[in-house]
Amino acid sequence: MKVGIFGASGYGGVELCRFLLSHPEVEIAYLGGHSTAGQKLSDIYPQLRGRLEMTIEPSDAKTAIERSDFVFFSLESKIGVPWIREVLDAGIKVFDFSADFRLNSAGAYEPHYGDHPAPDMLAGSVYGLPELHREEIRATKLAALPGCYPTSAILALAPLCKDQAIHTDMVVVDSKSGLSGAGRSKLSTVLHFSEANEQVAAYTPGAHRHAPEMDQELSLLGDPVSVTFTPHRIPMTRGILTTAYAVLKEDKTAEELLANYEEFYADEPFVQVMPAGELPVSKYPLGSNMCFIGLTIQPGTRKVIVVSAIDNLIKGQAGAGVQCMNLMCGFDETTGLMGAPVWP
Amino acid sequence: MKVGIFGASGYGGVELCRFLLSHPEVEIAYLGGHSTAGQKLSDIYPQLRGRLEMTIEPSDAKTAIERSDFVFFSLESKIGVPWIREVLDAGIKVFDFSADFRLNSAGAYEPHYGDHPAPDMLAGSVYGLPELHREEIRATKLAALPGCYPTSAILALAPLCKDQAIHTDMVVVDSKSGLSGAGRSKLSTVLHFSEANEQVAAYTPGAHRHAPEMDQELSLLGDPVSVTFTPHRIPMTRGILTTAYAVLKEDKTAEELLANYEEFYADEPFVQVMPAGELPVSKYPLGSNMCFIGLTIQPGTRKVIVVSAIDNLIKGQAGAGVQCMNLMCGFDETTGLMGAPVWP
Amino acid sequence: MKVGIFGASGYGGVELCRFLLSHPEVEIAYLGGHSTAGQKLSDIYPQLRGRLEMTIEPSDAKTAIERSDFVFFSLESKIGVPWIREVLDAGIKVFDFSADFRLNSAGAYEPHYGDHPAPDMLAGSVYGLPELHREEIRATKLAALPGCYPTSAILALAPLCKDQAIHTDMVVVDSKSGLSGAGRSKLSTVLHFSEANEQVAAYTPGAHRHAPEMDQELSLLGDPVSVTFTPHRIPMTRGILTTAYAVLKEDKTAEELLANYEEFYADEPFVQVMPAGELPVSKYPLGSNMCFIGLTIQPGTRKVIVVSAIDNLIKGQAGAGVQCMNLMCGFDETTGLMGAPVWP
Amino acid sequence: MKVGIFGASGYGGVELCRFLLSHPEVEIAYLGGHSTAGQKLSDIYPQLRGRLEMTIEPSDAKTAIERSDFVFFSLESKIGVPWIREVLDAGIKVFDFSADFRLNSAGAYEPHYGDHPAPDMLAGSVYGLPELHREEIRATKLAALPGCYPTSAILALAPLCKDQAIHTDMVVVDSKSGLSGAGRSKLSTVLHFSEANEQVAAYTPGAHRHAPEMDQELSLLGDPVSVTFTPHRIPMTRGILTTAYAVLKEDKTAEELLANYEEFYADEPFVQVMPAGELPVSKYPLGSNMCFIGLTIQPGTRKVIVVSAIDNLIKGQAGAGVQCMNLMCGFDETTGLMGAPVWP
Repeated sequence: MKVGIFGASGYGGVELCRFLLSHPEVEIAYLGGHSTAGQKLSDIYPQLRGRLEMTIEPSDAKTAIERSDFVFFSLESKIGVPWIREVLDAGIKVFDFSADFRLNSAGAYEPHYGDHPAPDMLAGSVYGLPELHREEIRATKLAALPGCYPTSAILALAPLCKDQAIHTDMVVVDSKSGLSGAGRSKLSTVLHFSEANEQVAAYTPGAHRHAPEMDQELSLLGDPVSVTFTPHRIPMTRGILTTAYAVLKEDKTAEELLANYEEFYADEPFVQVMPAGELPVSKYPLGSNMCFIGLTIQPGTRKVIVVSAIDNLIKGQAGAGVQCMNLMCGFDETTGLMGAPVWP
Repeated sequence: MKVGIFGASGYGGVELCRFLLSHPEVEIAYLGGHSTAGQKLSDIYPQLRGRLEMTIEPSDAKTAIERSDFVFFSLESKIGVPWIREVLDAGIKVFDFSADFRLNSAGAYEPHYGDHPAPDMLAGSVYGLPELHREEIRATKLAALPGCYPTSAILALAPLCKDQAIHTDMVVVDSKSGLSGAGRSKLSTVLHFSEANEQVAAYTPGAHRHAPEMDQELSLLGDPVSVTFTPHRIPMTRGILTTAYAVLKEDKTAEELLANYEEFYADEPFVQVMPAGELPVSKYPLGSNMCFIGLTIQPGTRKVIVVSAIDNLIKGQAGAGVQCMNLMCGFDETTGLMGAPVWP
Repeated sequence: MKVGIFGASGYGGVELCRFLLSHPEVEIAYLGGHSTAGQKLSDIYPQLRGRLEMTIEPSDAKTAIERSDFVFFSLESKIGVPWIREVLDAGIKVFDFSADFRLNSAGAYEPHYGDHPAPDMLAGSVYGLPELHREEIRATKLAALPGCYPTSAILALAPLCKDQAIHTDMVVVDSKSGLSGAGRSKLSTVLHFSEANEQVAAYTPGAHRHAPEMDQELSLLGDPVSVTFTPHRIPMTRGILTTAYAVLKEDKTAEELLANYEEFYADEPFVQVMPAGELPVSKYPLGSNMCFIGLTIQPGTRKVIVVSAIDNLIKGQAGAGVQCMNLMCGFDETTGLMGAPVWP
Repeated sequence: MKVGIFGASGYGGVELCRFLLSHPEVEIAYLGGHSTAGQKLSDIYPQLRGRLEMTIEPSDAKTAIERSDFVFFSLESKIGVPWIREVLDAGIKVFDFSADFRLNSAGAYEPHYGDHPAPDMLAGSVYGLPELHREEIRATKLAALPGCYPTSAILALAPLCKDQAIHTDMVVVDSKSGLSGAGRSKLSTVLHFSEANEQVAAYTPGAHRHAPEMDQELSLLGDPVSVTFTPHRIPMTRGILTTAYAVLKEDKTAEELLANYEEFYADEPFVQVMPAGELPVSKYPLGSNMCFIGLTIQPGTRKVIVVSAIDNLIKGQAGAGVQCMNLMCGFDETTGLMGAPVWP
């Protein structure tokens, strides 16, 4: 099968190419770009020389449709919408990494992103988190891949929300992310090495645009919840560690909660629940599509602390995209995604 | 005046030496050690060659008493207690960096550190955080310097607790620390560069031994509080960023809260409150005795998020020690501590 | 085919497991260890949970022979020799990561490693660098995998030495390595995060034990050469960048030299020569078995500067082992090794 | 005495401010800038709040002359020349961090920087390296502060060149620098955290514009020399480690050479020669004006390897500026510069 990619030159895009190059069922047939059109992807990323010698072409839906059996969009929000519409109209399945189709209502979208570019398309899209929406993903033509922070937070809290085990009036999500999450194209002083190195910074505390995704997905599972989410920039390239805090409605042991987590994720190929007494560190999933989750209870209290770890560019982006592609295109869900994590 | 130091060869100790070498009122007269006795401190830290060519002597209270007008102890908990007692008995003031005299009761100490080595001495010690206990520090002979995490958390939350402005049933303290806080002498795999680099890890979630200090000091200000504290190891050498989360009892704006912070810290030479809309990053205080604090409110809620930043080895250890020394020995409180932060 | 591994719990070993898990022709059948015997490899490396749930057994040649069609040894020098002998005697091929069989004579070995443990076995071993010894590797039963620094230096200089293009009285090899090259098991202060971070250090200048490998292999190509080699520890986990300096015998342009490099490496699947005007950076090969090489000439002089980049744990260790395995066991040379590099 | 600074908002400028704020003899009286004019320096660098609350004014020589007893210029090459001329004409001493007055001839300047903006001023300037030009510095009105790489290379090689102890036809200088040397104002992909982290890169091999400074200063000491210089970007913020390689004319021991180094630098307050068998690491001088130097000889050869370490922003920039100011303004040379290095 042939794959097209719009916006291949970002970090998510180049990781996507790496996974697709190793995927036995697909072949990259089209790379679309804007400022990079006319360059080879391997001119921008010389490490791909000899592996992917394709030229980036001007973004164009017709060319993508002609060449591809399905198409990835790795673009900023709003930019890709007209092409997505055109590609979908041609009967071709789409995997979109932007925020445009993640939120179920335009109303939830607008405070963070402005006017929604295509509210009529929301009903047809599915939130591309297989652990919560596997069957809907199989059936859709438009998968809206989750943000990297929401993936880590939702997987951390989903079993508790499903069980309605926590009070939802105060749920804290404190995430620590490597800086590749900020992408490559927008240079800024806060990402300048000398400023970012040896530095931890909270940003958009309580007001990050990924919080509504968390609220939407966790509320669908049980009680309505509005998390208090603060992301932090950490001096590392990759990985997200999320520490979530909530208050249990009833006394529970960590073992009891972990048994529920084990059950909730029993058939999940890409979620690993840690045994009691162990927590994941951010590097466990490095280079892989895995999410590791552990938890503990503050002694003598009902306060539960859940820690999850993903590779922000893989389970948080490119790998999740391939996982959805596998589901929507009828491949085995794990095809091309079973590489073990890299250590150290 | 002459200063003695027990345990100079750790990171806190060598930073203390750096500050004392620049302090116009004091001279280092005694360095005591155990495994390092017989070595020059500049053999262990060659960067001190030509600056501090003293030999470390076996730890001995009598020598320290003979040579010193006051004495610092930078040792693991319990080890220094007999020497501290002897030095105090000789009428010499002591600044202790261990946890032994921070908690007001042996009962609070024991769950984390085991039997208290000198419960009779607790009444005479003062928690060495000048922002809360300046006058008691001036009057004491034994200052128990706070842990690095408690300094960052207590300064972040003190004005809210003083005003009884927050519900104290769910106060989350999520701290991110550079690895120098773990010291130099205990090698371990988690601090091995290849494991610690590109890595974030939560540890002792909800159960760190610094939490009781936070609870004690914050509860003294108003309502009893028991924080939910999780420290994280961050791949950097220095600095602590603490993100604290609480729920306000009443609607307030960030500006209103910041006005209270400004007032609370109005005369503090080492606390800088950020204006509304700005948060400190971990590197602002690097190399200095400053603590920077900022806060915000999650829009549409009563949830307040406070961020504080200190250099863990300075305001979190050596600088705090010098600040207490200045107070207890009658020097100007800021003497030797006014060096501006280092950037980048 | 079944593979056995002695010493799987080091960084090279765990990377080897990662590659073997994805290799379509082989299956890991035996893990031998000493201090780790009785543990599951996934207890030491939790990221392998669900991927490799084998228990490490006490190192034992008989068990390895029974279970395996060929065997990797990832042990310190000298330790593995008796087992290697026993395994070879059973007709089973061996890939050895130690220094024991890299040098062609016991005399070259002894100044750096002490008495040679098995000089009689030297004649039967082959230096496992396929770019120089492909046919001998195919024919041998014992491949001695090169050190990581030698791989980067030899590949950088081989075409110049083959052409006898440089004066060999002053060849400088200045290498910069990530700290994973120092392994995991030996904790030391220089690898302690707070000491190694924000730190560059030269070590064993002019006297590193990898220099004799470079001298041996480069001298086999043409003029005898004795390099001046200084390795440096760099605050990163992975990768080696080697900068080599030599004086050309005759005036040449970079383009002329690069044409020779292109020819020398024309059929090499894992060497990529950069075009004139471009140099590799250490991260190009990250996560892959590639070696990238570029060069330039100091304007107005005959001084050539060659820069090479490898992932020290892959082309410098585990990947090179799989490449030799593929050659010696009759698989396609690139099987399991064609994953593209990871970026960023 | 009053000090003016043009270009205070770069990394060198803000470090200069830090040193001047602690300097007992001077007061900052003027900050000139261009794009930053109208802002307070503490708006750009919030860590300076409460320490330096001055507003940056439009760059203007008249204002600087009115307010200042001497003036620092921390600007890109060529930009500051008209103001420097005006300030000098007013009889005010100047410390210039640009390359404009470092090279003794316009001819040496032009290949790297283009037309020289003021060749008539070259005769009056002095290369601001006190270890080689102390008396000339005392006497001049215009100190041209050295580049950071030249300081590390010249101090490493000066005693060998002075003794004419090495062959000068092949002298390799391989430097490894933290990224603060690239400054703050020019954002670029190579300095973007995700690209620069976990990365070593050689740049401008054999062709960096700092090489002519090294050649000029080392040649003045003895035989003419043209070094082969390659700088490398290292994933750290601060520090330069330079590894220099040369061939001795005669057999010498490291001890003999070190005795010459000790003698050469006997009265230097800011150069520390390491004992035989020890080499400096990049972090020894962190935060201080020190340069540490060590050397060894490749066993059985005449090849000498010298390693030097400086903090690129201090001995390589701001501290060197203060040292020259002290000399030219009649203060003790070490005033304000005796702070011990920071560790870790």
